[in-house]
Amino acid sequence: MEKRSAILLVHCPDREGIVLAVTSFIASNSGNILYLDQHVDYEKGRFFMRVEWDLARSSIADEQLGEQFQQHVAAGFDMLWQLHFSNERPRMALLVSKLPHCFYDILARYESGEWQIEVPLIISNHQDMERVAERHGIDYFHLPVNQDNRQEQEARQLELLQQYNIDFIVLARYMQILSEDFINQYPQGIINIHHSFLPAFPGGRPYHSAYERGVKIIGATSHYVTTELDAGPIIEQDVAHVSHKDTVEDMIRKGRDLEKVVLARAIWHQIRRNILVCDNRTVIFD
Amino acid sequence: MEKRSAILLVHCPDREGIVLAVTSFIASNSGNILYLDQHVDYEKGRFFMRVEWDLARSSIADEQLGEQFQQHVAAGFDMLWQLHFSNERPRMALLVSKLPHCFYDILARYESGEWQIEVPLIISNHQDMERVAERHGIDYFHLPVNQDNRQEQEARQLELLQQYNIDFIVLARYMQILSEDFINQYPQGIINIHHSFLPAFPGGRPYHSAYERGVKIIGATSHYVTTELDAGPIIEQDVAHVSHKDTVEDMIRKGRDLEKVVLARAIWHQIRRNILVCDNRTVIFD
Amino acid sequence: MEKRSAILLVHCPDREGIVLAVTSFIASNSGNILYLDQHVDYEKGRFFMRVEWDLARSSIADEQLGEQFQQHVAAGFDMLWQLHFSNERPRMALLVSKLPHCFYDILARYESGEWQIEVPLIISNHQDMERVAERHGIDYFHLPVNQDNRQEQEARQLELLQQYNIDFIVLARYMQILSEDFINQYPQGIINIHHSFLPAFPGGRPYHSAYERGVKIIGATSHYVTTELDAGPIIEQDVAHVSHKDTVEDMIRKGRDLEKVVLARAIWHQIRRNILVCDNRTVIFD
Amino acid sequence: MEKRSAILLVHCPDREGIVLAVTSFIASNSGNILYLDQHVDYEKGRFFMRVEWDLARSSIADEQLGEQFQQHVAAGFDMLWQLHFSNERPRMALLVSKLPHCFYDILARYESGEWQIEVPLIISNHQDMERVAERHGIDYFHLPVNQDNRQEQEARQLELLQQYNIDFIVLARYMQILSEDFINQYPQGIINIHHSFLPAFPGGRPYHSAYERGVKIIGATSHYVTTELDAGPIIEQDVAHVSHKDTVEDMIRKGRDLEKVVLARAIWHQIRRNILVCDNRTVIFD
Repeated sequence: MEKRSAILLVHCPDREGIVLAVTSFIASNSGNILYLDQHVDYEKGRFFMRVEWDLARSSIADEQLGEQFQQHVAAGFDMLWQLHFSNERPRMALLVSKLPHCFYDILARYESGEWQIEVPLIISNHQDMERVAERHGIDYFHLPVNQDNRQEQEARQLELLQQYNIDFIVLARYMQILSEDFINQYPQGIINIHHSFLPAFPGGRPYHSAYERGVKIIGATSHYVTTELDAGPIIEQDVAHVSHKDTVEDMIRKGRDLEKVVLARAIWHQIRRNILVCDNRTVIFD
Repeated sequence: MEKRSAILLVHCPDREGIVLAVTSFIASNSGNILYLDQHVDYEKGRFFMRVEWDLARSSIADEQLGEQFQQHVAAGFDMLWQLHFSNERPRMALLVSKLPHCFYDILARYESGEWQIEVPLIISNHQDMERVAERHGIDYFHLPVNQDNRQEQEARQLELLQQYNIDFIVLARYMQILSEDFINQYPQGIINIHHSFLPAFPGGRPYHSAYERGVKIIGATSHYVTTELDAGPIIEQDVAHVSHKDTVEDMIRKGRDLEKVVLARAIWHQIRRNILVCDNRTVIFD
Repeated sequence: MEKRSAILLVHCPDREGIVLAVTSFIASNSGNILYLDQHVDYEKGRFFMRVEWDLARSSIADEQLGEQFQQHVAAGFDMLWQLHFSNERPRMALLVSKLPHCFYDILARYESGEWQIEVPLIISNHQDMERVAERHGIDYFHLPVNQDNRQEQEARQLELLQQYNIDFIVLARYMQILSEDFINQYPQGIINIHHSFLPAFPGGRPYHSAYERGVKIIGATSHYVTTELDAGPIIEQDVAHVSHKDTVEDMIRKGRDLEKVVLARAIWHQIRRNILVCDNRTVIFD
Repeated sequence: MEKRSAILLVHCPDREGIVLAVTSFIASNSGNILYLDQHVDYEKGRFFMRVEWDLARSSIADEQLGEQFQQHVAAGFDMLWQLHFSNERPRMALLVSKLPHCFYDILARYESGEWQIEVPLIISNHQDMERVAERHGIDYFHLPVNQDNRQEQEARQLELLQQYNIDFIVLARYMQILSEDFINQYPQGIINIHHSFLPAFPGGRPYHSAYERGVKIIGATSHYVTTELDAGPIIEQDVAHVSHKDTVEDMIRKGRDLEKVVLARAIWHQIRRNILVCDNRTVIFD
């Protein structure tokens, strides 16, 4: 039998006794702490914690754990918290356009069992990737978006996301801007990959801008989508060195490899429940 | 008044209840936890922790803290532990030969107040750096070492180290091998910088070997000195890319910058009490 | 019509007048130089060059270019040289075992047109990847190798490689050691990915060794296969930082992403004819 | 006797025959090419070249070389060019404020002979670094700048720069903005280090902005100063990973090490005559 654990993510105003209160609660339910990471942002006076404990000898039912925690600990510290169980498999949907590299990379990781998730749904504004989705046995919906039909297509997308019981969405180089309404349905639930080291070069054609500016480094940024374009909480960034020898095409080529890896790492953290967000910044317990 | 804190480093066999025991002990002495990092090495079944707490409202005298912790917590868990106080300034000695880059870099950091330490003593087998030591007002002892006088010179070095009340030693490209006796006097107290990404290219002339092997990456490694040459616990490593264009001299030049930074980071961790060692591996709470 | 160019790779003993001789030869055939990279290894007294020129107004037939170059330039300088044309599509074979990550990554790049190559042949000692090969329409041969049948299976492999007219072979985490005979058939024609920053941790289970040694950096190395195990000319290396938090499994996970990228870059250089080898070291004109 | 070489930097509109013309010119003067790097920016249709040749058997006087080159080669290709000789030691001036890290690092490299330059002059708007300048035997001028006296102090600075025969100026964290007039006196002759990965976070307090934005990477950028703030041609950039654990102070600390190295590399390229600038972008022949 696989080891089953609970994962608790917490943040609250910083004050004395929080660690003790949480660890006492876990101990009182016969949980053995496997990982405990805490972080205090002194500038903002805020406390963050990720704690994972073994449920093997738990003296309390999973479904009562949250309620008990709220009552005995969270309420007293004004905590925001999430509780997850290691045996849950998050359900991820992919939104794609025509660029295949992140899409292929995600499907390869999924197929080879790198991630403990389900990927039941792919939505695209193009048909290009349909055949690839098919051979992985994933439902693919072609919903072309234009100026006129954005609202109804988004309604259809939301319907599908609900129907497929989706936990979080990955924009694998999906070249469309989502509406505020859509975004607000999935707070910290939409992950985008942007092809620059944000906040440099937001918006379109960042490699062209990077070339023009003559930078010696290009990058990629995965972030949660918020209603402000390319300004959501950053999950992961990485960079590669370039030189005067690199054309825009070379940058695009080198950037593809960055984008794949940076997006995959963000998905990993999402799946592992490593991420807390506060004030548009992420705390990532790695 | 500056905030004063206690730093406790602990490792012991992993079992339930350790975090709770430690945090309860701190709470019972009116300490507020500032940082708590823990790590479990499941393969080896060992628990590691660094916890730092505010002493502002401490209900117990500094000098009794260790004894109380031993009695009420450590004994029961078979803990190895160290207790430090943030207002202590560790005393560092430098051993140097003729290569100046790490030496200059360390003195610049010291002089500009980057590190909360004292550097009262420099020992060298050459006279080259004497003038630099003088202008920083640091005592400099020229103890040339050769095959015949190693033993007596080491005795003299040890005498000086004791006389100057040295906490830890940094070999800033000191090109001599220390005796087993000497090394055993300073467990986890001698930091060396080796000019390769160990375990590749141990021993002398690693840049020449790197060139011959045609590697595309060179590196530097800071580690604790143990009696096995270049095989002690690694504290920090970093690398730089090289190409066929780089001659041995280019590698040496690029390597110097690596060595400076990698050694400085190790010293930083040593000063901040971030490092635990077990089974020849370091746990670094950053 | 696509621009067609000639790519000439040259090395020879260094002496005066080489660049002039080569550029004069190209000019005399109405070629316009697009790229010219040269490198002199002064330690070894050897000259290396990669030059690419536009054939649009070439006054000489492709098939005579090499002969003319040999006669008018190469002979006089004792040159070793290769001549390629940009419209040739090299033919690559894949040897795989059970680990899918490099294999998937290569096929995704191939399918999406990232590389100007043909991949007509996959050989494996296992059946695991057969289905994936099928869906990409690539012939897959299952040739299980053991102590007893190595020789005859290698004979069969060589037969297939010849039959499919293969230019170079990629070992995409192929876990078998090739015989000296096999290797000698493909000088600078077999690319391997090793899962460490060689020369550290050659041989099997490098991530386990890296964990035991407590390194702070892991790496991957792509290199040409020679008869000495993991000691061939290095094409590309990259690294990732790890910490005490990383288990062997974490290292394997992080290493996979390194391996994919480092192998892909080596293949890119191979396809682009960027690589010269001399004295077990590569010169890579990037 | 040390080997003496000529270094020629050239750029011009791209067309056929440039490499041949330059190499023929060198050969006709009995020069042996040591390094030849060329680059074509096809987007802009511009050709760049750095060529270095041995003067040991030169059949022409140094002082006539430029004139001859202009007449026989440059004029015909509409070339912009510079000619340098390896035995010239460029004269560098330092402008500093109060932050010591880049300043110390530069002086250490200078004192230990890492760079073939002269540093005869330091100018500062503060007195903090005077003692350090003194012990290195470098003239130090304290010219405090404020709103009212900027113009006259700049006049004094320019006078000193001329008097000391300065070739290029390094702003080693000099916190003042220079006037357009001042900048125009030293085109590609003023190197600044900015403490972010430009174009992200131009202007003041970039580490504070980086913290607020929650980036996972910080950087440093060395660039030529132009009249547009922080927008000059980028020479070198590097980055370091940060996490939620890093406070603004941690970023400043980690950034210092980046700034030192990135500035030192830019100075290295400047000294080695590796840099060409065109359209606000650098071509760096490394």
